[in-house]
Amino acid sequence: MAQALTFDDLQRRVEQVFARAGLAPHQGASLARVIAAGERDGCKSHGIYRIEGVLRTLKAGKVSGTALPRLLPTDGAIVRVDAAGGFSNAAFDLGLPHLADRARDLGLAALVINDCTHFAALWPEVEALTGQGLAGLVMCPSYATVAPAGGNRPLLGTNPLAFGWPRPGRDPYVFDFATSVAARGEIELHRRAGKSLPEGWAIDADGQPTTDPDAALGGAMLPFGGHKGSAISTMIELLAGVMIGDLTSPEVLDFLGTTTLAPFHGELILALSPEKFAAGRSGDPFARAEQLFEAIQGQGARLPSQRRYAARAKAMAQGVALTPAETAQLDRFLALGLDAVA
Amino acid sequence: MAQALTFDDLQRRVEQVFARAGLAPHQGASLARVIAAGERDGCKSHGIYRIEGVLRTLKAGKVSGTALPRLLPTDGAIVRVDAAGGFSNAAFDLGLPHLADRARDLGLAALVINDCTHFAALWPEVEALTGQGLAGLVMCPSYATVAPAGGNRPLLGTNPLAFGWPRPGRDPYVFDFATSVAARGEIELHRRAGKSLPEGWAIDADGQPTTDPDAALGGAMLPFGGHKGSAISTMIELLAGVMIGDLTSPEVLDFLGTTTLAPFHGELILALSPEKFAAGRSGDPFARAEQLFEAIQGQGARLPSQRRYAARAKAMAQGVALTPAETAQLDRFLALGLDAVA
Repeated sequence: MAQALTFDDLQRRVEQVFARAGLAPHQGASLARVIAAGERDGCKSHGIYRIEGVLRTLKAGKVSGTALPRLLPTDGAIVRVDAAGGFSNAAFDLGLPHLADRARDLGLAALVINDCTHFAALWPEVEALTGQGLAGLVMCPSYATVAPAGGNRPLLGTNPLAFGWPRPGRDPYVFDFATSVAARGEIELHRRAGKSLPEGWAIDADGQPTTDPDAALGGAMLPFGGHKGSAISTMIELLAGVMIGDLTSPEVLDFLGTTTLAPFHGELILALSPEKFAAGRSGDPFARAEQLFEAIQGQGARLPSQRRYAARAKAMAQGVALTPAETAQLDRFLALGLDAVA
Repeated sequence: MAQALTFDDLQRRVEQVFARAGLAPHQGASLARVIAAGERDGCKSHGIYRIEGVLRTLKAGKVSGTALPRLLPTDGAIVRVDAAGGFSNAAFDLGLPHLADRARDLGLAALVINDCTHFAALWPEVEALTGQGLAGLVMCPSYATVAPAGGNRPLLGTNPLAFGWPRPGRDPYVFDFATSVAARGEIELHRRAGKSLPEGWAIDADGQPTTDPDAALGGAMLPFGGHKGSAISTMIELLAGVMIGDLTSPEVLDFLGTTTLAPFHGELILALSPEKFAAGRSGDPFARAEQLFEAIQGQGARLPSQRRYAARAKAMAQGVALTPAETAQLDRFLALGLDAVA
């Protein structure tokens, strides 16, 4: 029978797992919050499923669980946090108030996170910005698993792009998606289920279109939206890799030598103040945005993240349900620490 | 026989057309530069073909050809130009040096253009930024002609998104595309040629998929990349419409009552300084970007804009070739001014 935990209890349980594995409290707490949030929101692919990857990356020595992120002197509109080889999450938490202050002062500002290991979805960071009344645009590279449009082998990452717009008194407008057609995990799921892939997801090692999951995993994924998505993904390599002085997706793969560990690179977070941008103009930007959302929903289209918010509302009322296997896995992680993973 | 003009001669000829139509020199010169650049780059859809739309929008009283754009006091990282009902181009030219200064000082900055009529491609503006050693991200709404993913009628615009990265000594990395699958003009071209549309371009007035150009023009276009492209297009409405206190695509259509005149709205231009963002990190961002471009081209994929740059190189060497019909049209515009259009 499934066990239901409160969000807070789940978060504490995950914190305990990370403490047992040797993570310092500031790293473990930041990680546990986003993992519990993923589980709460029904994003199983970013929930407790991710703990094992965190532990494996720790055990492989590719991330420091005790690194103290360091806020560097702010330069103009650029806030910079050196994650010092730790997880991105604690670095983000350190930089967030400074980013928000700069964005409110200047109208827009950037948070650069360098030398971090990244394993989470971007929406928790976007929501942290919308929670401060700011719009946010977040991006980072990944590892080379996606061929550029017209190419024939992996080069770009699945390079997620996320955006949020604050909606006072409501869940924010948030999107967060890979710039590949599908996530690598979806191809893996098709492989395990013995199912063919839809057309257009991937190419094989010879650069030919394939619907065979094994051939796809040995070849390359494709960007969403053809050359347009490929161009956006390239922009993410440039801005959130090259420009911020951190690794691009091919460099990440060279560094790790595998796609089974969490990627090590940097991250770029832009924050914009709607109040500053709208100053002196007629109309309240938040009210006007609601008109746009009503028009979208009024024709039967969905806003992104609505499924996630519905799952969240249910979890906050009824608890987060874990399967017996998930509960057993958490217990095992707690008992064995890093010995629980290969 | 086609007539070849030098780029400068073509630009002067177009300036004369605009002077004859009553545009003030500062408006006409900015417009003529981007129209001549479109023709030079083989972008016929943004070349002298656009002159007629400019004249029609002027004649309809929906744009001022004599408006003096006004630089408002810079607030933090936000440079703002009130186009005062004139064309976006003169407003951009006024704001550009101030935007570049702020981006170099702060690391990133925004130029907001309000109350402008917009008819040009965005790449000339992106290239103006890369020419200053800055990366640029530019976006604006359009008019409601695109249904959101899952919707059934026009709401979003074709909302172009453009990005540029400077390449010292070479043509910059630039993309500039509509966030709809196809541009409206492409559907019109299929209609005139009596050809069916590819699947996935459009829906009819009942919200059903259609490959009939007439049904598509009476229905709605679709965003590129399904719900991902739809989300990006919605972001453009929010940032470059609502946030900057200017019209969204449905509001533009309400204001103009037609899609045959150039749209009236605002524009958002972000400029980022790679030197500032990379400061204190190892590696030269411009050299590292070249490695990425080489890797893309090394597997046979193209960088965006390469066809445009090839056309440009040829035009700069051999002149810009106009057909006899195009030459006659320019002569007619010069002779008749606004009387040349309905």
